[in-house]
Amino acid sequence: MLVVMHATATQGEIEIVCSVISDMGYSAVPMPGEQRTAIGVVGNDGRVDDTNVVGLPGVAQVIHVSKPYKQVSREWKAENTVVSIAPGVEFGGTNIVIVAGPCSVESEEQILASARAVRAAGGSALRGGAFKPRSSPYSFQGLGKRGLELLALAREETGLPIVTEAMDEAGAELVAEYADCIQIGARNMQNYSLLKAAGRLGKPVLLKRGMAATITDLLLSAEYIIAEGNSQVILCERGLRSFDTAARNMFDLNAVPIVQKLSHLPIVADPSHGTGRRDMVIPMTRAAIAAGADGILVELHPNPDRAKSDGAQSLYPEQFVKLMHEVRLIASAIGRGITPAVGTDAVESR
Amino acid sequence: MLVVMHATATQGEIEIVCSVISDMGYSAVPMPGEQRTAIGVVGNDGRVDDTNVVGLPGVAQVIHVSKPYKQVSREWKAENTVVSIAPGVEFGGTNIVIVAGPCSVESEEQILASARAVRAAGGSALRGGAFKPRSSPYSFQGLGKRGLELLALAREETGLPIVTEAMDEAGAELVAEYADCIQIGARNMQNYSLLKAAGRLGKPVLLKRGMAATITDLLLSAEYIIAEGNSQVILCERGLRSFDTAARNMFDLNAVPIVQKLSHLPIVADPSHGTGRRDMVIPMTRAAIAAGADGILVELHPNPDRAKSDGAQSLYPEQFVKLMHEVRLIASAIGRGITPAVGTDAVESR
Amino acid sequence: MLVVMHATATQGEIEIVCSVISDMGYSAVPMPGEQRTAIGVVGNDGRVDDTNVVGLPGVAQVIHVSKPYKQVSREWKAENTVVSIAPGVEFGGTNIVIVAGPCSVESEEQILASARAVRAAGGSALRGGAFKPRSSPYSFQGLGKRGLELLALAREETGLPIVTEAMDEAGAELVAEYADCIQIGARNMQNYSLLKAAGRLGKPVLLKRGMAATITDLLLSAEYIIAEGNSQVILCERGLRSFDTAARNMFDLNAVPIVQKLSHLPIVADPSHGTGRRDMVIPMTRAAIAAGADGILVELHPNPDRAKSDGAQSLYPEQFVKLMHEVRLIASAIGRGITPAVGTDAVESR
Amino acid sequence: MLVVMHATATQGEIEIVCSVISDMGYSAVPMPGEQRTAIGVVGNDGRVDDTNVVGLPGVAQVIHVSKPYKQVSREWKAENTVVSIAPGVEFGGTNIVIVAGPCSVESEEQILASARAVRAAGGSALRGGAFKPRSSPYSFQGLGKRGLELLALAREETGLPIVTEAMDEAGAELVAEYADCIQIGARNMQNYSLLKAAGRLGKPVLLKRGMAATITDLLLSAEYIIAEGNSQVILCERGLRSFDTAARNMFDLNAVPIVQKLSHLPIVADPSHGTGRRDMVIPMTRAAIAAGADGILVELHPNPDRAKSDGAQSLYPEQFVKLMHEVRLIASAIGRGITPAVGTDAVESR
Repeated sequence: MLVVMHATATQGEIEIVCSVISDMGYSAVPMPGEQRTAIGVVGNDGRVDDTNVVGLPGVAQVIHVSKPYKQVSREWKAENTVVSIAPGVEFGGTNIVIVAGPCSVESEEQILASARAVRAAGGSALRGGAFKPRSSPYSFQGLGKRGLELLALAREETGLPIVTEAMDEAGAELVAEYADCIQIGARNMQNYSLLKAAGRLGKPVLLKRGMAATITDLLLSAEYIIAEGNSQVILCERGLRSFDTAARNMFDLNAVPIVQKLSHLPIVADPSHGTGRRDMVIPMTRAAIAAGADGILVELHPNPDRAKSDGAQSLYPEQFVKLMHEVRLIASAIGRGITPAVGTDAVESR
Repeated sequence: MLVVMHATATQGEIEIVCSVISDMGYSAVPMPGEQRTAIGVVGNDGRVDDTNVVGLPGVAQVIHVSKPYKQVSREWKAENTVVSIAPGVEFGGTNIVIVAGPCSVESEEQILASARAVRAAGGSALRGGAFKPRSSPYSFQGLGKRGLELLALAREETGLPIVTEAMDEAGAELVAEYADCIQIGARNMQNYSLLKAAGRLGKPVLLKRGMAATITDLLLSAEYIIAEGNSQVILCERGLRSFDTAARNMFDLNAVPIVQKLSHLPIVADPSHGTGRRDMVIPMTRAAIAAGADGILVELHPNPDRAKSDGAQSLYPEQFVKLMHEVRLIASAIGRGITPAVGTDAVESR
Repeated sequence: MLVVMHATATQGEIEIVCSVISDMGYSAVPMPGEQRTAIGVVGNDGRVDDTNVVGLPGVAQVIHVSKPYKQVSREWKAENTVVSIAPGVEFGGTNIVIVAGPCSVESEEQILASARAVRAAGGSALRGGAFKPRSSPYSFQGLGKRGLELLALAREETGLPIVTEAMDEAGAELVAEYADCIQIGARNMQNYSLLKAAGRLGKPVLLKRGMAATITDLLLSAEYIIAEGNSQVILCERGLRSFDTAARNMFDLNAVPIVQKLSHLPIVADPSHGTGRRDMVIPMTRAAIAAGADGILVELHPNPDRAKSDGAQSLYPEQFVKLMHEVRLIASAIGRGITPAVGTDAVESR
Repeated sequence: MLVVMHATATQGEIEIVCSVISDMGYSAVPMPGEQRTAIGVVGNDGRVDDTNVVGLPGVAQVIHVSKPYKQVSREWKAENTVVSIAPGVEFGGTNIVIVAGPCSVESEEQILASARAVRAAGGSALRGGAFKPRSSPYSFQGLGKRGLELLALAREETGLPIVTEAMDEAGAELVAEYADCIQIGARNMQNYSLLKAAGRLGKPVLLKRGMAATITDLLLSAEYIIAEGNSQVILCERGLRSFDTAARNMFDLNAVPIVQKLSHLPIVADPSHGTGRRDMVIPMTRAAIAAGADGILVELHPNPDRAKSDGAQSLYPEQFVKLMHEVRLIASAIGRGITPAVGTDAVESR
């Protein structure tokens, strides 16, 4: 931590800051400059709480050198964390995991048709919402528990593991009973009660970045889950709020290399919510793979024009087939592969 | 709703769109232009669900004319809603309500000293967090139930009604037992489970705008509460995420006149979180009053330099006294007054 | 300057950084911490160029303590700079200057009617564009030199000094011949050739903040003008690009107290461009005064419904009269006054 | 254009709007709804100027259906525009053009070493600034005309065509004498005098997107150039201002598919300025290619640690060699190629 004093700070003010730092158990290293004095704080094991310093007379600014998070950081753990949601379906290794499916579970017929299309094209997990956070209270809110049962049915038939969202503590327990990975949505990224609950359930958690969350915020929210003893966390970029209304969101692929530098956790990308436009999903999925994403969440619907939610961003099954083909080529160009579909072996799927 | 077709859309595509609109129970009014055809949708009572239209071939864009929210709008209810959290403490009338207190309840001594300072300077309600949403799991998270008890004690002594935050459903029930107004924080603005729970508790709710929430998002979240039968909702601007790091947040006072035009609900402003800097709190509080805010939430601490959270943005008690003086003059300049402190009469407090 | 090393940096890497700092003529103060080493740089007179350090092996981050600007800062000059554009029309003193007029000069009749309305209501300067930067090449681009002549005519009749925009170096010379203050628009805030040209002309310059400019950027652009020897610079907040489309821009009043803390230059606010909506101009003008702005630029048109540009944000003359009344009351509430109209004395105008 | 009336608009107000629309030469189609009336405007050839309508009594909102730009749009010209800056160096065709070089020209030795490294690794054009727009007036501003002469020397030796920036009208003329493509920087994207001047010089123009420019803004600025008779315009994404400080900018690859849908002009990406971090340049270059960019501008320096500007984002020559290899593989995965270096044939370069 570095305490920058005002140019007009008195010697007395500098001494008080040094003494408060000593009281906190650290050493203060004053560095008088031509313009102003800065005071280095040393001896701290991790980020110092600046509460008692920041408001002292003469203090212009407090600059933190240590990161505010801990267990999610690469400095805490240098090698990649690999999160497995089912045998052979691992995020964070060499292979890239393609998760696909409809925005929401609408009916048995729809979710089975979706799962078959995902399986047939070589996807390795099924997504689909049973509980849907919708901006408007009057929009379709999902089938709830019935949706979870239908997802389980689809898994039974196709072997695809399930990723689905929980919106509150009670929902998280229910989701954990049925699904292979609990998704926490962008709107709940800082719902700390939910993060803690998810951390205690012992299932892998897919944590989506909030619409205006910095990478630091995202990592701090992951830290909430890990602090409960669950390090099976997958991060997900899904588009930010932007001043440009050309697309629904601004899909921020920069998050991929930034997270990979700062953290050992896997990071995936969701180009469907990330862009909100079907015609952008294919190029931006390719870009996400090229940027180094450990997986992709993509919306596919057997009949997007009749979808109950987010139809405009869902791929047609035949588009998904084409996408899988391109994605394999790009993964291979950067020395990676695509996770083979469940029940196949690696050679067949490439 | 207006459906804009691509310049290259065929007559057949236009007819399909019209027929889908008819199937939905509305009338379609095609308007052929030089460049492209637009199709007006009439006969709708409120916002049309565009799911079935937006993905049809030839459709370039769907433009909504009706607002996505309903009961929060001025069109639904023309006159201001006045929300009373205690006898004489009303948001949305002529008088402006000043709510002050520490960021978090730290001890009996601290909250009583704060409450006395608020009361003495003429504030009319007490704020203070018992449950604190903090970005880091390692930061002080509040005293919980003990904090609520201390707030109740402070109310008993000073007569000031209490505004305090709830972070989840269980917490909301507890807060409702002790407090006069349940606050929902910016990070939980789209925690729909919490919004619904708060809506069912029958207490006034103060809903803070999320850090990247549009005004439409804020109003939709308020609609979640009202849709549960509780129209006692106070909206609150508390600063947005911004590209400029000169202040912690970008306090958006434009929200005040915009909300007042679109909605009948009262709107207050929180310059302490809005700016994050003590030296900006006073000018921006004055500005909020001048912009027309129905109330102010401001942080005050008996000893900001020793605060356990947000000390750098808390006012010293003597600054609050000065602020109350300026606030009265500005309110009067625009034909409003400041709510008199509890137990005093209006004449005395002006 | 503080150089933060990676946790994994070797002793050799630390020594190389120290030796490069020495070569630059400064002293290096290494501060080894539990997690990593930071190296303080002392002995610098102003901001250090970090080019040679930032890419060295082992360097994680370079943090600047000194500001990148110099002559615009309060540390360079503690007392307010007062910029006078005509006798008695001073920005940065106790009195607040109200500049009003149409978006663009359209005709002799229109500009004279505007100037008379400004004068009658007590405004103290006239604004109006002769050269108009428009997003589209097909929009009305202003009357050019003829517009300047009409502004001069209006000044002759009413005595109001003129503020008008220059878009390039040749235009700046022409504007300097006719106007009392050269405006540089938001889109040209980082047009450095224009800034330098304006700096050399010896006339007061009103510099508008760009739509995504940080306060630091704004101050650096002002530094370009001052570095040419012209310290007569007025800064202007006029709204930022935002993710919320409820208003055209996000008018950022936080700029007022932030600039006043960092710089000695006066800062004014333009609520007309800042919001783009006539119904927001009045509350946000009041808020700007309450926040401490040294002046206001506001659009007024004798017949806004027929304006060639920005009619939707221009006040009707009768609204301006009402605004002037409120503005006087708020200025008085914070111990300031409104600059009296030219040719009147202070007592009459209050 | 669609005029949305307030719910409370009277029949008389609706009629006045219709009559004003008729006066403008268009037809008005009123569509009465349950909540409010909307009035369609038909018969317009391109975007209607809404100035006379937007302020009329009863009007709530004016919605534009036509785009504000014209000649840059895909509707104006369906097939891709191919911009050639030298024989065989074409933007907008099947092949992708790699432009590389230092941020600024520093010396003969440095620019020749850079050009040789670019040529050797298979790049097909040289970038390098002679005129540098710098936020601070005290930063290195480029060698000016001498820099242009050195670029020409490097072209003579290596055969690489030159892309370099002009900052004002006089500079644009000078740049046009020496360079093969005139770059207009992000800060000058809305410097309309410069856009017009560049449009008149008859050389290809590379136009960078401003830091908070929407895609619409970018296309409108390109329209300024085309409106002068020059359709040889290459658009460039180079990073946006963002709330997250993890990288210098937020590189927005979504711009690539969005522009390609809306416009026939080629679009390239600059991951060096886009991210500002060397370790992000390689993954984000790969992502840009995968997203469909028609070219890449990348910074390379023979000795980045000694660069006079932007050293921290410049690649080492050996990194560029590796990047060229990956870029070829990804281009091939999506059915494209890399433009062969000048003087080689396509087979050799692949």
